[in-house]
Amino acid sequence: MKIAVIQGPNLNMLGIREQHIYGSMSLEQIHEQLKAAASQNGVEIEFFQSNFEGEIVDRIQECLGTVDGIMINPAAYSHTSIAIKDALSAVNMPVVEVHISNIYKREEFRQKSITAGASTGVISGFGPFGYHMGLIALMQIIAELKAVTQAQQANA
Amino acid sequence: MKIAVIQGPNLNMLGIREQHIYGSMSLEQIHEQLKAAASQNGVEIEFFQSNFEGEIVDRIQECLGTVDGIMINPAAYSHTSIAIKDALSAVNMPVVEVHISNIYKREEFRQKSITAGASTGVISGFGPFGYHMGLIALMQIIAELKAVTQAQQANA
Amino acid sequence: MKIAVIQGPNLNMLGIREQHIYGSMSLEQIHEQLKAAASQNGVEIEFFQSNFEGEIVDRIQECLGTVDGIMINPAAYSHTSIAIKDALSAVNMPVVEVHISNIYKREEFRQKSITAGASTGVISGFGPFGYHMGLIALMQIIAELKAVTQAQQANA
Amino acid sequence: MKIAVIQGPNLNMLGIREQHIYGSMSLEQIHEQLKAAASQNGVEIEFFQSNFEGEIVDRIQECLGTVDGIMINPAAYSHTSIAIKDALSAVNMPVVEVHISNIYKREEFRQKSITAGASTGVISGFGPFGYHMGLIALMQIIAELKAVTQAQQANA
Amino acid sequence: MKIAVIQGPNLNMLGIREQHIYGSMSLEQIHEQLKAAASQNGVEIEFFQSNFEGEIVDRIQECLGTVDGIMINPAAYSHTSIAIKDALSAVNMPVVEVHISNIYKREEFRQKSITAGASTGVISGFGPFGYHMGLIALMQIIAELKAVTQAQQANA
Amino acid sequence: MKIAVIQGPNLNMLGIREQHIYGSMSLEQIHEQLKAAASQNGVEIEFFQSNFEGEIVDRIQECLGTVDGIMINPAAYSHTSIAIKDALSAVNMPVVEVHISNIYKREEFRQKSITAGASTGVISGFGPFGYHMGLIALMQIIAELKAVTQAQQANA
Amino acid sequence: MKIAVIQGPNLNMLGIREQHIYGSMSLEQIHEQLKAAASQNGVEIEFFQSNFEGEIVDRIQECLGTVDGIMINPAAYSHTSIAIKDALSAVNMPVVEVHISNIYKREEFRQKSITAGASTGVISGFGPFGYHMGLIALMQIIAELKAVTQAQQANA
Amino acid sequence: MKIAVIQGPNLNMLGIREQHIYGSMSLEQIHEQLKAAASQNGVEIEFFQSNFEGEIVDRIQECLGTVDGIMINPAAYSHTSIAIKDALSAVNMPVVEVHISNIYKREEFRQKSITAGASTGVISGFGPFGYHMGLIALMQIIAELKAVTQAQQANA
Amino acid sequence: MKIAVIQGPNLNMLGIREQHIYGSMSLEQIHEQLKAAASQNGVEIEFFQSNFEGEIVDRIQECLGTVDGIMINPAAYSHTSIAIKDALSAVNMPVVEVHISNIYKREEFRQKSITAGASTGVISGFGPFGYHMGLIALMQIIAELKAVTQAQQANA
Amino acid sequence: MKIAVIQGPNLNMLGIREQHIYGSMSLEQIHEQLKAAASQNGVEIEFFQSNFEGEIVDRIQECLGTVDGIMINPAAYSHTSIAIKDALSAVNMPVVEVHISNIYKREEFRQKSITAGASTGVISGFGPFGYHMGLIALMQIIAELKAVTQAQQANA
Amino acid sequence: MKIAVIQGPNLNMLGIREQHIYGSMSLEQIHEQLKAAASQNGVEIEFFQSNFEGEIVDRIQECLGTVDGIMINPAAYSHTSIAIKDALSAVNMPVVEVHISNIYKREEFRQKSITAGASTGVISGFGPFGYHMGLIALMQIIAELKAVTQAQQANA
Amino acid sequence: MKIAVIQGPNLNMLGIREQHIYGSMSLEQIHEQLKAAASQNGVEIEFFQSNFEGEIVDRIQECLGTVDGIMINPAAYSHTSIAIKDALSAVNMPVVEVHISNIYKREEFRQKSITAGASTGVISGFGPFGYHMGLIALMQIIAELKAVTQAQQANA
Repeated sequence: MKIAVIQGPNLNMLGIREQHIYGSMSLEQIHEQLKAAASQNGVEIEFFQSNFEGEIVDRIQECLGTVDGIMINPAAYSHTSIAIKDALSAVNMPVVEVHISNIYKREEFRQKSITAGASTGVISGFGPFGYHMGLIALMQIIAELKAVTQAQQANA
Repeated sequence: MKIAVIQGPNLNMLGIREQHIYGSMSLEQIHEQLKAAASQNGVEIEFFQSNFEGEIVDRIQECLGTVDGIMINPAAYSHTSIAIKDALSAVNMPVVEVHISNIYKREEFRQKSITAGASTGVISGFGPFGYHMGLIALMQIIAELKAVTQAQQANA
Repeated sequence: MKIAVIQGPNLNMLGIREQHIYGSMSLEQIHEQLKAAASQNGVEIEFFQSNFEGEIVDRIQECLGTVDGIMINPAAYSHTSIAIKDALSAVNMPVVEVHISNIYKREEFRQKSITAGASTGVISGFGPFGYHMGLIALMQIIAELKAVTQAQQANA
Repeated sequence: MKIAVIQGPNLNMLGIREQHIYGSMSLEQIHEQLKAAASQNGVEIEFFQSNFEGEIVDRIQECLGTVDGIMINPAAYSHTSIAIKDALSAVNMPVVEVHISNIYKREEFRQKSITAGASTGVISGFGPFGYHMGLIALMQIIAELKAVTQAQQANA
Repeated sequence: MKIAVIQGPNLNMLGIREQHIYGSMSLEQIHEQLKAAASQNGVEIEFFQSNFEGEIVDRIQECLGTVDGIMINPAAYSHTSIAIKDALSAVNMPVVEVHISNIYKREEFRQKSITAGASTGVISGFGPFGYHMGLIALMQIIAELKAVTQAQQANA
Repeated sequence: MKIAVIQGPNLNMLGIREQHIYGSMSLEQIHEQLKAAASQNGVEIEFFQSNFEGEIVDRIQECLGTVDGIMINPAAYSHTSIAIKDALSAVNMPVVEVHISNIYKREEFRQKSITAGASTGVISGFGPFGYHMGLIALMQIIAELKAVTQAQQANA
Repeated sequence: MKIAVIQGPNLNMLGIREQHIYGSMSLEQIHEQLKAAASQNGVEIEFFQSNFEGEIVDRIQECLGTVDGIMINPAAYSHTSIAIKDALSAVNMPVVEVHISNIYKREEFRQKSITAGASTGVISGFGPFGYHMGLIALMQIIAELKAVTQAQQANA
Repeated sequence: MKIAVIQGPNLNMLGIREQHIYGSMSLEQIHEQLKAAASQNGVEIEFFQSNFEGEIVDRIQECLGTVDGIMINPAAYSHTSIAIKDALSAVNMPVVEVHISNIYKREEFRQKSITAGASTGVISGFGPFGYHMGLIALMQIIAELKAVTQAQQANA
Repeated sequence: MKIAVIQGPNLNMLGIREQHIYGSMSLEQIHEQLKAAASQNGVEIEFFQSNFEGEIVDRIQECLGTVDGIMINPAAYSHTSIAIKDALSAVNMPVVEVHISNIYKREEFRQKSITAGASTGVISGFGPFGYHMGLIALMQIIAELKAVTQAQQANA
Repeated sequence: MKIAVIQGPNLNMLGIREQHIYGSMSLEQIHEQLKAAASQNGVEIEFFQSNFEGEIVDRIQECLGTVDGIMINPAAYSHTSIAIKDALSAVNMPVVEVHISNIYKREEFRQKSITAGASTGVISGFGPFGYHMGLIALMQIIAELKAVTQAQQANA
Repeated sequence: MKIAVIQGPNLNMLGIREQHIYGSMSLEQIHEQLKAAASQNGVEIEFFQSNFEGEIVDRIQECLGTVDGIMINPAAYSHTSIAIKDALSAVNMPVVEVHISNIYKREEFRQKSITAGASTGVISGFGPFGYHMGLIALMQIIAELKAVTQAQQANA
Repeated sequence: MKIAVIQGPNLNMLGIREQHIYGSMSLEQIHEQLKAAASQNGVEIEFFQSNFEGEIVDRIQECLGTVDGIMINPAAYSHTSIAIKDALSAVNMPVVEVHISNIYKREEFRQKSITAGASTGVISGFGPFGYHMGLIALMQIIAELKAVTQAQQANA
C-alpha cells in the first residue's frame, strides 16, 4: 500500500511560524514520525510540500495510478482553490484532508474549506497527531475499497 | 481513563435512516465495536443518545469531574445549538466532535458547525470508523494533558 | 388507516394566544372535529402536542411501522429545527405540514420552513380548516401509495 | 357559487413538461375532474390559462363582482410578479394559491412566493389533487364569509 | 408640444384598489384633470394604460419621433422590469417617472426602482397631484432642451 | 403661508462643486428665483443651509409652530442620518424632500434615502427646477390640509 | 405580588463556567440575594432553571394566571428560539429579559436577541446585579399596570 | 433542418438603440445575413421578435415538434424571467442563447442569466456575428443528436 | 459621587414627539425626577442634551476627571455613530446606555447599537423609568469599582 | 494569422476526468482537430496548458506582439483569478474565453467568471466544439480589427 | 506652499486614549514635529481638529483658494461620512488621508473608508510617522501638479 | 540595512499596461530610482518580481534572517491570497504594502486587501512615488525596532 502526503503553502515553516497556533514540531519531524508509523503497517509514503497551487495540482494528478490514496493539508489554499478541488475530483481516489489547527476556532474566512468537498473525510484540530489519524483512516478506507473490489470480482 | 460518548438527534435511527448517506450499521453495533476497542486500551465508555437538546446539555454538564473527555456527534444540533456549544465551553475538557458523513458534501446549512468552535478537534466523513478515530484522538489528547499536568506538578 | 397528528410548541395555547392571528378555537375543539371527520372516513388518529423539539423527534420516530402517515404543524420549530426535518426524512412516509396562519403574510423569519423540505406537501393559511384539508390530502396520498404497491406486487 | 381558476405560464404543458416533477395528467384532464367535483357541490368554475403576466392581471381584475373567489397557480410568476400580487390585493376576495410540486423541495429561487402574501392560503406539493383541495378550501372560506356578512346584516 | 402618459399595471383600479394607499380618484378623473391643465398650456397628451410589460415596452418605442416626452408610472413593474428600463434608454428622450404613493414608506421591495435609472427625474408621494407636477416638469425640460438645440443650430 | 427651505451639506458649494452633476447655478441664485416665485403666490420663505447634521435637526425642530411646511434637501445626510429622519417625524408636518440630481443614476450608496421615509413626498433629478416643483407641491399639500381641518371644524 | 424567574441553559453552571465572562457568583447565591430583596418589598418569587427549550416554554405558559410578571434570562436560547418568543407573546404579561454579560461586547451571533422582541424591556451587562434591576423594573411595571386597570374600573 | 430564432424585448430597436453597446446593424439586416448563411447550409429559419414575455413563452412552446432547435436572445428577460426558463426546459430541445454584448462587462444585474440554465450553451459578446456562431453551433448539436438517435435505432 | 447624563438628538422633543412610542413626559420632567432621586442618594448630576454628534463627543471627553460615570441615551446616533463609541472608549469609565423604547420591537435599523459595544451595560424599553434604573446601576458599578481600588491600595 | 490557445488547470485531464461533465475527448485530440481546422484557414496556433496561475499570466504576457489573438479556457481560475484578468487587460488584444460545460448549469461558484470581464466574448457549454467556434470568432474579430486599422491608415 | 492638516473626532485624545492602539504621543507633539519638518521644507501648515462632522466639512470648503493641499485623518468619520467625502470632491485639490493605526488589522467596520474614495492617496498604520509621510507625499503631488500647470502655460 | 522589494503579478507590465491607471514608468525605472535613493541612505535592496503566488510565498520565506524588512506590492494577489498573508505572518518582520493606484477608487473587489492585515502599514494611490515613501517608512520602522531591541539588551 502506497500513499502520497501533500503539504500546502507555508507548512514548511512549521515549528518556526506562529507556534501558539501550529505547535513547535517541524514538518520534517512530523514526516519522520509518520514514516515510522507507516512502515510498521507496511505502508509506503511519498512526501511533498509546495507553496505553489499549480505544483499541488500537478502532484495530485501524478497520484493517478501510482498511489492508493492521498493525505493532503491544503493549508491556505483550502479556502481559495477550486483548481485543487477539481484535481482531487479528477483523480477520484481516497482523499483525507488534514488541518493542524481547528479551523472552526479561527478567523471567519478559514472556517470554510472549498477542497473538503472533494475529499472523503476531514480531520481538523488535532495538531501533528492529525496526520497519524489520517494514516489510520486512509488504511481503513483503502482496505474497505479493496474488499469491495475483490467481492465484485469474485461475483463476476 | 473514562470517556463519555454523546449521540445527538436521530442517530438512534442509524441503519434504518437514509442508508445511502449514513450506512447500514446500527448505533448499537457501532457502540459495541467501540466498547471492545476501548476496553482493549483500558478505556471505559459511557454511552448516551438523546433527541433532546436540553438532555444533551444536561449530559455534558454531568461530565464535569466524572469523565476525562467527551466524544460527541451533535448531528442536526451541530448547525443550530448555541446551548450545546456553551455547555461544551463550560465543562472545559477534551472534546472530539464526530460526523459520520462529510458535512462539506452535504446541503449548505450542514456545512457550518456551531458546536465545533467549542471542540478540541473535528472528524468528519469516515462513517462509523470516525468513532474509532475519535477514541484514538481522545486517548492521545488526554495522555498529553496528563503529561503536562504531571510535569507542572513536578516543577512546583 | 391510521395517522398521527403532531402539534408543535404553543399550539396548546390556541384560543388563548393571539386570537387575531390564530382564531378562537382551542386545540381540543380542533382535535374533536378532526376525530369526527376521520372516523366517518374510517381513519384512526393519534393526537400529540409538545413544546419540546426532542419529544417531537421521538414521536415522529415512533410513527415508523405504527401509522400510515403524519400530519404535523411544527409551529415555531418549522423555522429553526433541522432535527425535526431529519426525523421526517428518516421515517420516510407521507407527511403533510399544516400552518394555521398564512406564513407568507407574517414576519420575514416565519416565511421560510426548514421542515417543509421533508414533507410531501404543505397547507398554510386556512385556519383550523387546514387540518381537515390535511386529513383529506393524507387519505388521498396513502390510497395512491397503496395502489402503487399493490400494482407492483401484482407485477412481481 | 362561482369561482375562477387561473393557471399561469407553462401549465398548458402539463403532462408534456418534465413529468418527473409535474406528473402525467394534462391541464384539460385536471380541469375536467375539477369541473365534475365542483358541479357536484353546486359550484360553477371559469377556467383560464395564460403565459402572459398582463393577461393574468387583466383576468384577476375581471373577477371583481363576477366570481366569489379565485384559485390561482401563478407558476413561474409566483416568484417574480409584484403586478399579480397587486392585482390580487386590489380585488380583495378569497384567493387560494396552488402549487403542483412542493416548492420547498425545489431550487432556492422557487422557495419564495411573492404572490402568496396576497392570498388567503397556499397549498403546495399535492400534485393535481391540490386543485381539489383548493376547491374545498374556497367553498369553506366563501361559506364562512357569507355567514359573517349575514350575521352583520342581521345585527344592523 | 405633445407628451405620452403611460400608466402601468393595476392603475386602472385606482379609486377601487386600496384607497388608504392610493386615494379615491379614478384614473379617468386624473386623466381629465391632467388633460385640462395640459390644454391650458398648449400641450397635447396621449394616454395609455396597460397591465402588460410588453405593451408598455411597445408603447414607449412608439414614442420615438411622435412625442416630445414621456410621463410614466410603471407601478409594480418599476421594481422588476429591466425591459421597460431598456426601452426608456432606447428612445432617449425626456422621461418623468411618477409614483402616487411615497415608495420610501412602503414595503422594502417597493423602495428600489429599476426604471428610475433610465428617467430624467422622479416624483413620488404626492398622490394624483404628482401627475400635475410631472406635466410642469416635462414642459420645463422640453423647453430647456429646445433652447439648447436652437442655440446649437444658431452657432452652426 | 410660510415655509422653511433647509439645505444640507455642501449645497453652499453649488455652482462651484462638480458642475457636470449639480449644474452651474449658485445656491443664492436658486434661492432668489424661489423667493420671487413664492412671493408671487403669497408664500413667505425662510432659507437655511448648514453642513452640520445637528444644526439641521435644530432647525427642523424650530419649524414646529412657526412654519406651515418644510422643503428639505438633506444632500449627503439623506443616506446616513436617522437623526434628521427622527426630527422630521417629530415635527409631523408637510415635508417635501428635493434632490438636484437623479439619485437613481448615482452610486449605489446614494440610491437609498433614509430621510425620505419621514417625508410626504420626494422630487429627484430635475436640477434647480426641483425646488420650484417642491414649492408648488407644498402649497398644494398645505392647502389640502387646511381644507380638511376647516371641514372638521365645521363638523364639530 | 408574585413573579417568576426563569433561567435558561447553562446558567446552573454560573460560578463554574467561564468566570471571566459571567463572574464568580453561583446561581443559588444570586437567587438568595434576589429572594431577600424581593421579600423586603413584599414580592414572592418562583425560581426555575432548565436546559430544555421545551421546559422553558412549558414554564412560561404556566405563568398565565399564576404570577404578575416574568423575569427571564433565556441565555443561549435568546439567539435561536422562536418557540420561547411565541410563548412570551402568548402569555401577554410584563416580561423583563436579563443578560449577565453585555451582549453587544460578545460574538456577532450573541448580539441579536429573538426573544427580546416579546419582552417589555431588556437589561444587559450589569452582572448578577442585573437581576436586582429587573426586580425593581418588574415591580414598577406591574404597579403602573394595576394603576391603569384600577383607573379603568373606576371609570366604568 | 429547421430552427427558430427568437428575439427578446427591444431587439427591434437594434441600430437605433445605444449603438456604442449594440452596434449599428438593424435586426432586419442581421436576420437577412443569417437567412443567407442558413440557406447555404440547407437550414430553414423562422424569425420572431417580441417585447412580451408571454409571447416568447408561447413561441417557445410552439417549437415543440415544429423545429429542430432554438436560437434565443432573451435580452432583458434573461435576467428576470423564470417563465422563459421553464418554457425552454419544457420543450427539451437544443437551445443556444446569444447575447450581442459581453454581459460580463455590463452592469451587475446583467451578469446573471436565469434562462441560460435551461440552454445547451451560451454565446456572449461577439456582436451580430454571435448569431452566425449560434447557427453553426445549433447545426452541430442537432447533427450529433441525430447521429446518436440513429445509432440507438440501429442497435434496437 | 457625580455623574453626567447625556441625552442625544430629538430627546428635547420628548412629550411632544411620537407619544405612542416615547410617552408623554418631557425631558425636563424626567430630569427633575432623576435629580430628586439622585440627591436622596448623595449623587450629583450634570444634565446635557444636544442634537450634534460633535457636541456629544466633546461632552463625553469633558467627563474625564470630572465625573465618576456617564449615563447616555445616544438616541438616533446609537445606530450610526462610531465617533461617540470611540469617545466612550477613550474616557474609559462606567457607562450606562439607556433607551426609552425597547429597540428590539422597532425597525430593523434600530435593533443594532454601535455605541453599546463601548458601554458597561444597556437598559432598553422601560420608558422614563429606565433612567432611574440607570442611576441605581451606575451607583452600584461605581461603588464596586471604588471597593476594588481601595482593596488594591490596601494591598500595595 | 497566429493565435495562442491557453488551457487552464486540470484540462490536461480531459477524457480522464469526470466524463459525464467534460466528455471523452482528450486535450490532445481537441488540439489536433483544432490545428487541422486552423491550418485549412491559414491560421497558426500555439498550444499551451498549465496548472499554474502564474504560468498562465506569463504566457498571456508573451502574447503581446507575437500573436493576433488569444483563445483561453481558464477553467477553475475563471472563478478566482484577478491576476489572469489583469494580464488579459494588460495585453489588450482580441480574447475569446471558452468553457466546455455550460457554467450556468453548474455549482453556484462556477456561474461567475472574473476573467470574462477582460475578454471580448465568451462561449460556454458546447463541449470541445466550443474551441472550433472560438477559432471562427477570433478569425472574424481579427479580420474586422485589421479592416478598421487599414481604413484608418488609408485615411491618414 | 501651504497645506491644511485636518484632524477628525477623538484625535485630541491621542496619548490619553487607548495607547496600545494609538501610541503615547499627544496631538500637540505630533503637530509640533510636523511643523518643524514642514518649515525646514518651506511649507506652512494650518492645523485644525474637530469632533464635529459639520466643522470638518466647513474647514475643507475653506481650503478652496487658501491652501495647496489637504492632509486629513477623518478618524471615525472615515467609515460613515458621505458629507466629508462630498466636501473633498467639491474642493478638488490634492488630498492625503492618514490613519495612525493599520485599519486592515482593526474591526470589520473600520476596514472600509468612505472618504478615501475622494482622496489622492491613503497612508495607514505607520503611527504618528504617517503624518510625516503625508507631508512628503503632498509636497511631491503639489510639485508635480505645478510642473504640469507650468508646462501647459508654456505651451499655450 | 537590507530590504526586499517584492512585486506581484503583471507589475512587470508597468509602463505598457493600462497607463491611465498605472502611469508610464516601467518597473525597471522605478527600481533604479529606488535603488539610488536607498544607496544614498545606506540601504541595500533586493528586487524580485513574479506572476506566481507560490514564488512570492517562497521569496517571503527566504527573507527570514536575510533582510531587515519587506516592501511588497502584491497587486492582484492582495485581494485573493491567504497564502501570501500567511507567509507574511510567518516571517514576522516589518512589512510595508504599496499600491500604485488608490484602491478605494477602483472596482469593488479591489477595495479589500487580504494581505494588508499581515502588514505593518499600507500606502496606496501615490503612483511610483509610493515606493519611495515605503522606503522611508521601512527605514523608520526598522530604526525604531533596533532602538527598542538595544534598550532591552541594555536593561538585561
